[in-house]
Amino acid sequence: MSSRTDVNTLGEFGLISHLTASFKNRQPSTVLGVGDDAAIIATGGDEQLVVSTDMLVEGIHFDLGYTPLKHLGYKAVAVNVSDICAMNARPQQITVSIAISNRFSVETLDELYAGIKAACETYGVDLVGGDTTSSNKGLIISITAIGRAPASRITRRSGAKMGDLICITGHLGSAYLGLQLLEREKQVYLANPDMQPEMKPENKELYAAILRPEARTDMIDLFAKNDIVPTSMIDISDGLASELMHICKASKVGAIIEEGNVPIKQEAQLQALEFNLDPITCALSGGEDYELLFTIDPKDVEKVRFLPNIYISGEIVGKDDGITLHTTGGNIHEVKAQGWNHF
Amino acid sequence: MSSRTDVNTLGEFGLISHLTASFKNRQPSTVLGVGDDAAIIATGGDEQLVVSTDMLVEGIHFDLGYTPLKHLGYKAVAVNVSDICAMNARPQQITVSIAISNRFSVETLDELYAGIKAACETYGVDLVGGDTTSSNKGLIISITAIGRAPASRITRRSGAKMGDLICITGHLGSAYLGLQLLEREKQVYLANPDMQPEMKPENKELYAAILRPEARTDMIDLFAKNDIVPTSMIDISDGLASELMHICKASKVGAIIEEGNVPIKQEAQLQALEFNLDPITCALSGGEDYELLFTIDPKDVEKVRFLPNIYISGEIVGKDDGITLHTTGGNIHEVKAQGWNHF
Repeated sequence: MSSRTDVNTLGEFGLISHLTASFKNRQPSTVLGVGDDAAIIATGGDEQLVVSTDMLVEGIHFDLGYTPLKHLGYKAVAVNVSDICAMNARPQQITVSIAISNRFSVETLDELYAGIKAACETYGVDLVGGDTTSSNKGLIISITAIGRAPASRITRRSGAKMGDLICITGHLGSAYLGLQLLEREKQVYLANPDMQPEMKPENKELYAAILRPEARTDMIDLFAKNDIVPTSMIDISDGLASELMHICKASKVGAIIEEGNVPIKQEAQLQALEFNLDPITCALSGGEDYELLFTIDPKDVEKVRFLPNIYISGEIVGKDDGITLHTTGGNIHEVKAQGWNHF
Repeated sequence: MSSRTDVNTLGEFGLISHLTASFKNRQPSTVLGVGDDAAIIATGGDEQLVVSTDMLVEGIHFDLGYTPLKHLGYKAVAVNVSDICAMNARPQQITVSIAISNRFSVETLDELYAGIKAACETYGVDLVGGDTTSSNKGLIISITAIGRAPASRITRRSGAKMGDLICITGHLGSAYLGLQLLEREKQVYLANPDMQPEMKPENKELYAAILRPEARTDMIDLFAKNDIVPTSMIDISDGLASELMHICKASKVGAIIEEGNVPIKQEAQLQALEFNLDPITCALSGGEDYELLFTIDPKDVEKVRFLPNIYISGEIVGKDDGITLHTTGGNIHEVKAQGWNHF
């Protein structure tokens, strides 16, 4: 009798590692394969291409009960662009494939593509291909993004060194709290369809964070303008803790995060308290903020210190020191990954 | 009240045109966007990249009731590689994203990836990335393939000229007849689960055509070796009629196909008759053969005539002459597209 191993036992990253472990790269043009935010492909010239792909499934990654299709289209592009940014590259092309059940009309798809188009214009990427097919259930969006950068500027997860500073490009936890608000309102609505959802104006930025995040192409331009090449980088899609662990694992280092230096918006802090959550937990374990987490050589600190929207939040230490959070109260906690797990 | 247009009213190609009509390409590196088998991207050097993507949905594109997962993995790669071949380029990298419901175990995914790996080895492509997530229902596979070729060799759909010869790289209709056999056996099984499916050995090649097609990378090598650059090319995924119409539309020409020169295997001819089908109809309207349909300048005819597996099946004529089939009986029929429509 054949055995049956549930995919949940491996988790998303474990499953990818398991399935791709025996594959070998043969093409000289393959500079980097599976295991970073994007693959790196040589072009023959000084520039290299970076390629990343993401699949978004209705009911798993988004809920059309509270996600406007235009925002969804925008976000689907933004999260792929974010992976290209995480390589310190500029996105240039995307392909978009969709599978749709027969409940989707041309007009609803027009909304989705209006969002895709808006994102293409914001990030300067061209839609160059795709596929359109039926699904048995719901909407599935698969996007591949292609970017490029000079080989000397491309940044991997694996370059962090002891003594490097850990930087974050913006506020964390907002998307997670926005999602909690939307889920709470959905439950209220499901319990009583006559109740109108209550979207308080003071929470506007939390809703925007989850429904219409921005990729930080502006940071890639800022790095280039200020002659900064991070030693390592990743985008924060699964929460700070999980991403930090990816960098530390790939770079074979440890890390200290200073709670007081992790940027969290005041409205996120207030909303976290209303939900009886610790704000730093939302930043560490909540996902989908799509800020960049990167490390820099300490000699670059003066270049970074006065740039807008960059927060120096910690330091890379030796591998044996592990990954720890130094709280504002003076305690030290081991950081554990509790990112999203879609299985 | 907002209107609701069913996606079926547009068809797959009409829907893609509709959704992408307002998008403009801005990047100088985008040489060719939506509308061919693959997009073309400049690299800065003499070579260009071609990028193609396909999404396969369980219950729409494949039936796991009679499709071994290993074959499915192989085919999913082959159909994407075929799109790269259709540009006269050599595939080098792929990304593979999958969404799976919880009925899939690690062991079944191992089978799927064994097929993906076998295809990567056959075609010399590297698996460089992907995504793995949950689905609400069934298995969805989204693959993006990246190939490259010297700019001067890349072949589009749009270059066919009056007087060019129409060539096909292999037998058509086999995949369609293989599918009909599998569907018939499935119905027998569903009606009486004690009946074992009857897979006659003489139909082996028909089953292979639908379950484990090959992309014609060998033809791309043959073209390069013999200094042949087709004037236009497309892969036959939706049936000869539909693909010929794509070439004629893009090239603004018409075409004559000689029934007697369309390659159809004897076993396919026999099986067609058993199903009360005209073999040429299976070739024109059946899909998934993944042979290449291309046109050559008449001055290249001597280069092509003695190459193995290339059949000269017709000629490009003026646009006003339309697309016609000249039958072995001496009749002339207008060719209409009846390719697959997954909506």
